[in-house]
Amino acid sequence: MQPEFLELKTRLAEVQDLTKAAGLLGWDQRTLMPARGAAVRAEMLATLGKLAHEKFTSDKTGRLLENLRPYEESLDYDSDEASLIRVARRDYQKAMRVPSSLRADISRLSAQASEVWIQARKRSDFAAFLPYLQRHVELKHKYIECFDEADNVYDILLDDYERGMTTAEVTALFETLKRDLVPLIAAVAESPQKVDDSCLRGHFPVETQRAFSLDILKRFGFSEDAWRLDPTVHPFASSIATGDIRITTRYYENFLNAGLFGSMHECGHGLYENGVSTSLERTPLCRGVSLGLHESQSRMWENLVGRSRAFWTFFYPRLASAFPAQFGALDPETFYRAINKVHPSLIRVEADEATYNLHIILRFELEQEIINGKLALRDLPEAWNARMKSYLGIAVPDDAHGVLQDIHWSSGMLGYFPTYSLGNIISVQIWDRVRAEIPDLDEQFARGEFKTLREWLRERLHRHGRKFSPRETLQRVTGQPNIDVAPYVRYLNAKFCDIYGL
Amino acid sequence: MQPEFLELKTRLAEVQDLTKAAGLLGWDQRTLMPARGAAVRAEMLATLGKLAHEKFTSDKTGRLLENLRPYEESLDYDSDEASLIRVARRDYQKAMRVPSSLRADISRLSAQASEVWIQARKRSDFAAFLPYLQRHVELKHKYIECFDEADNVYDILLDDYERGMTTAEVTALFETLKRDLVPLIAAVAESPQKVDDSCLRGHFPVETQRAFSLDILKRFGFSEDAWRLDPTVHPFASSIATGDIRITTRYYENFLNAGLFGSMHECGHGLYENGVSTSLERTPLCRGVSLGLHESQSRMWENLVGRSRAFWTFFYPRLASAFPAQFGALDPETFYRAINKVHPSLIRVEADEATYNLHIILRFELEQEIINGKLALRDLPEAWNARMKSYLGIAVPDDAHGVLQDIHWSSGMLGYFPTYSLGNIISVQIWDRVRAEIPDLDEQFARGEFKTLREWLRERLHRHGRKFSPRETLQRVTGQPNIDVAPYVRYLNAKFCDIYGL
Repeated sequence: MQPEFLELKTRLAEVQDLTKAAGLLGWDQRTLMPARGAAVRAEMLATLGKLAHEKFTSDKTGRLLENLRPYEESLDYDSDEASLIRVARRDYQKAMRVPSSLRADISRLSAQASEVWIQARKRSDFAAFLPYLQRHVELKHKYIECFDEADNVYDILLDDYERGMTTAEVTALFETLKRDLVPLIAAVAESPQKVDDSCLRGHFPVETQRAFSLDILKRFGFSEDAWRLDPTVHPFASSIATGDIRITTRYYENFLNAGLFGSMHECGHGLYENGVSTSLERTPLCRGVSLGLHESQSRMWENLVGRSRAFWTFFYPRLASAFPAQFGALDPETFYRAINKVHPSLIRVEADEATYNLHIILRFELEQEIINGKLALRDLPEAWNARMKSYLGIAVPDDAHGVLQDIHWSSGMLGYFPTYSLGNIISVQIWDRVRAEIPDLDEQFARGEFKTLREWLRERLHRHGRKFSPRETLQRVTGQPNIDVAPYVRYLNAKFCDIYGL
Repeated sequence: MQPEFLELKTRLAEVQDLTKAAGLLGWDQRTLMPARGAAVRAEMLATLGKLAHEKFTSDKTGRLLENLRPYEESLDYDSDEASLIRVARRDYQKAMRVPSSLRADISRLSAQASEVWIQARKRSDFAAFLPYLQRHVELKHKYIECFDEADNVYDILLDDYERGMTTAEVTALFETLKRDLVPLIAAVAESPQKVDDSCLRGHFPVETQRAFSLDILKRFGFSEDAWRLDPTVHPFASSIATGDIRITTRYYENFLNAGLFGSMHECGHGLYENGVSTSLERTPLCRGVSLGLHESQSRMWENLVGRSRAFWTFFYPRLASAFPAQFGALDPETFYRAINKVHPSLIRVEADEATYNLHIILRFELEQEIINGKLALRDLPEAWNARMKSYLGIAVPDDAHGVLQDIHWSSGMLGYFPTYSLGNIISVQIWDRVRAEIPDLDEQFARGEFKTLREWLRERLHRHGRKFSPRETLQRVTGQPNIDVAPYVRYLNAKFCDIYGL
């Protein structure tokens, strides 16, 4: 093997170590850290980000990548080695554009603003959060200036989360989605068949919720020797290594859904990270290829698996014995309908499958207006609330349940939200393929078996990590390179026409 | 202020960020990490250690330290600035001697060996641990070769934990200690007055233990916004920032002491780190000055406070209501005698105040023999067991309760153990001064008040961090620069003559 390749690999491994260390610091900050640790933590994260960036963007890395062109060309395109050189070069070219000092500023601000956001959300105090958001947007503009002019400046932000995707493409996909979803949601609202979801509210002790969720997760692929499940304010999944997967969830004592489906959702993310080939460990290829594909996995396990009749054929009796007061005398079909109720609501992460995408479209539009200077940040809560009224027909009672609900902006993540709906769309594209290749999937779920699905996904998607582009990856999994809304819309129509008798 | 000073400070802050990040990774590894995260964690720790070392030992650091000599001389010796330059230069001169690759090897081995040790200890399998210990000793020899020849090669190891201390000095202190302790322990054993400590064994639910310990710790100075208390296999204290102090303890359901006094012990370490002046945050001065002085604080809170009659005047009624079955009908004096029972036992961290030091002297002697090649590592369990028999008169049933009990050697920490007894000795040297200056200390304890003590310690000792040498620091706290065994021996004699009626 080329000595220069080994040199590159060692260098990239050290960058990855710094990045994963920062990942652990971030996980800790959001789950366990005492509040007064925040100021120093922000500095630590800034330093780790800066050093990783400096090491990665050093002249030495550039020289190695250049010298390794002939070696790369001598290798199979699909090999780990060629992929590492190819992807690292693309990352390098992008990273070279952003000065370390700007990276450090963004990283430091994110850590500080996340703490402020937690407090602001508690007190529903947008004004406290506003200066931090303002500063984030300023830094985003500086960031955008580092790149060649794009058709839409928002493209540059989007590219960080869904490489190769453009604002125009997303807009086209979302327009189709909106066109098909709005009549479906209207038809559901007008249907005489109502869904009663009162069974999901009641008293659900946190410890019982946790135990029941773990029972599910362990059948999905969670194991104590390689995973953690912890409570947090805003659920997320984090991978420190393929053998150190950390998912978080939040439990409400009076409402079952958040903890239950939140756990399954984050487990989907975790399974992707856990499934990356260990041959890619400590390389920049060792993670999911894009947020859209990542979200396709979380939404698949949450919705296509976790909200299916077949799944509850197995788990409903267990649920009923975990919470006998609520479910002991209730028929499973009522429960199935309850967890699939379509009902416009305030909080994105708790939204049903149909209205969820309107939460995303709202954020996608607001982010574009913010970044294009069409919306002053102080007017953001008002704009948010107006659009919630217009798209979902509901009034936002306070900013905690509105503009402050998500962590993303506090971490400077603008351009991230659209990937959630892309994930929904992709999840069904993949699902169609899964069903075609595993005909007895429902029978397996009904027996509490998920291994065939998990291994199919690992083989087709997870193990590749970031070796291929999102488009190449989609091609490998589904046989076509483009995101297609049609299967998703078909799925939603079929599911909700059945439930609501349309 | 000198621009070069600011440059030095920034550089040292980044080194500190890396070091503290490694500290958090280590804390996480020992408390929360899933087992299969260990291999990558070892690499991450090696990388952080290597990068911190490279950054610190770069030519640039050396030039800055050199150029800043005139600035340093223009400053007050006691100032933060002069102290930072002075201590960093001393650290630099020492660090320059050790190549990065050796540091990385040691760091990687420590992470791997710690995992192996956990398993080996569980199964009492010294053979599984032996190759790792062997490798540690090999690396220690390479490490020793980096330094000028010393009177005793062990001096070089000792200096890492207790700067300026020599093997000869420790031997002299320990000989005095042994001379005075052996007759005391013998007299206790022969005393007709026996101590019944059966009240400490029974059923103590972990959650109640934790709540009771927290009640104590909060009065000592623990606060939720700046501290954590977590369970672990081997208790330790860790400081990520002065506002992010993490202490760990282990609970036995059938034995009260480990969790209770372990928590107080680690809290003493935590109070030291928490008390360092925030002006020293993100500098290499931001921690306790030496392990001996650190241990003086943990042992002070554990023993001089936590095993005193005055302390239990306040806490005994609370203990009795936490565990009414055990203590509801028991008189406090029986309990006081129980927690102060002198009785040779197997486990160092659970040993009484008098016999504890013999555990240390045993390790101090064995370490010297190992490092001087007088004892083959495969014979270590036998040598351990023979000395336990000879010093404490007890037979070691298995290696889990013998040579495998402590984590130190798995982390490559040879030369560390003697600082525990140095800490014991120093704790009473300081205590004599405390008592002279706070005459109503016992009355305060009896009211559950520890603030005066804590603030005295913060003012005299904690806030200085590493600004001064261990000797200078001891001088500031006690008025004399040398460690003196006499107060400690007087204290032990007085306490145990009282309890055992000698």
